[in-house]
Amino acid sequence: MPKLVDHQERREALARALWRVVDQHGWTKVTMREVAREAGVSLGHLQHYFTSRTELLTFAMDLTAAQTGDRITRALAALDQPPHPRDVLRLVLAEMLPLGPEARASSRMRAAYVLETLHDPALREQAGLGLREGRAMVESLVRQAIAQGQIAPDRDPDVETDLVLALTGFAPLLELEVIEPQAALAAVDQHLDRLFAAAP
Amino acid sequence: MPKLVDHQERREALARALWRVVDQHGWTKVTMREVAREAGVSLGHLQHYFTSRTELLTFAMDLTAAQTGDRITRALAALDQPPHPRDVLRLVLAEMLPLGPEARASSRMRAAYVLETLHDPALREQAGLGLREGRAMVESLVRQAIAQGQIAPDRDPDVETDLVLALTGFAPLLELEVIEPQAALAAVDQHLDRLFAAAP
Repeated sequence: MPKLVDHQERREALARALWRVVDQHGWTKVTMREVAREAGVSLGHLQHYFTSRTELLTFAMDLTAAQTGDRITRALAALDQPPHPRDVLRLVLAEMLPLGPEARASSRMRAAYVLETLHDPALREQAGLGLREGRAMVESLVRQAIAQGQIAPDRDPDVETDLVLALTGFAPLLELEVIEPQAALAAVDQHLDRLFAAAP
Repeated sequence: MPKLVDHQERREALARALWRVVDQHGWTKVTMREVAREAGVSLGHLQHYFTSRTELLTFAMDLTAAQTGDRITRALAALDQPPHPRDVLRLVLAEMLPLGPEARASSRMRAAYVLETLHDPALREQAGLGLREGRAMVESLVRQAIAQGQIAPDRDPDVETDLVLALTGFAPLLELEVIEPQAALAAVDQHLDRLFAAAP
């Protein structure tokens, strides 16, 4: 199906033009007109692939999420198999924080997307779904570790899941250089060490 | 000095117009022209009070920070004196999270501001200063609690400070209703209970 593949590739190229606009000029410049200009195409051409700004943003965010997922999958494959749940959580958190160029781009896209959803119910629904899936994945790792005795049985899996997710809160502090990458990773490690402390 | 007071009041009224634009139309609409329209003044009038968009944003962010500070000060005054460091940290975290209308507006403004700073070195410098002050305040509370035996002496004050700050990471999860306000506060309490667990 070369036509469908071309269509997808074209859409990905346009989404990357959106990212370049975000990176170079900030979120305020993310209009259909500006993305078309950055991609070197006409507004009509862009509108052929994305009928609305919401559709373009949703596609760009899905692509960001897929690329973050790919990075995590590749890094997981490099761990001892089966990987220890602590290592999986550390790896996921490290990929969610703006510590390298790709992760930084994804992190900025996510932060901008959250703000955008506050004024767009369709985007908000979509973003909520994605984040709830991410939360469910972390929760299942925590529950599995409790069942296997790697996390003490008196830990509340819901609270522990939320406390792991809170560590993504280092993203803005890293962006503004309030904390250093090493300090963020040391804090992540400290938190995970306590979570996975030997059951009593 | 009625003239200076008027000037400050006028600037605050214009900053509030900026917030209304953010709240109603999102960050992409925050242009000098749009803020002037929302405030019901001419672009020239706005430019008389703020010579650039960066100056307006910096003022609006400083005002947001001052208002968050005022809310914290008022809430602190209602605690037993002198307040326990655990109660101070809980109160600060609760005011940083989007749990009520005022705190939600401040939280959104901060999130948008962080994104904006990525493309504006002057704003970035300013935002970094404010956040580093906030971090220093939390660190001094943690160090004081260690000195007073309220936090175990083997806890690393830098790591513990960063882990407390990470809890502001609940903000986007609350905005997208991935976690409920009660769950965020339960996780904050769990974290602080462990931090302030009796020294061994």
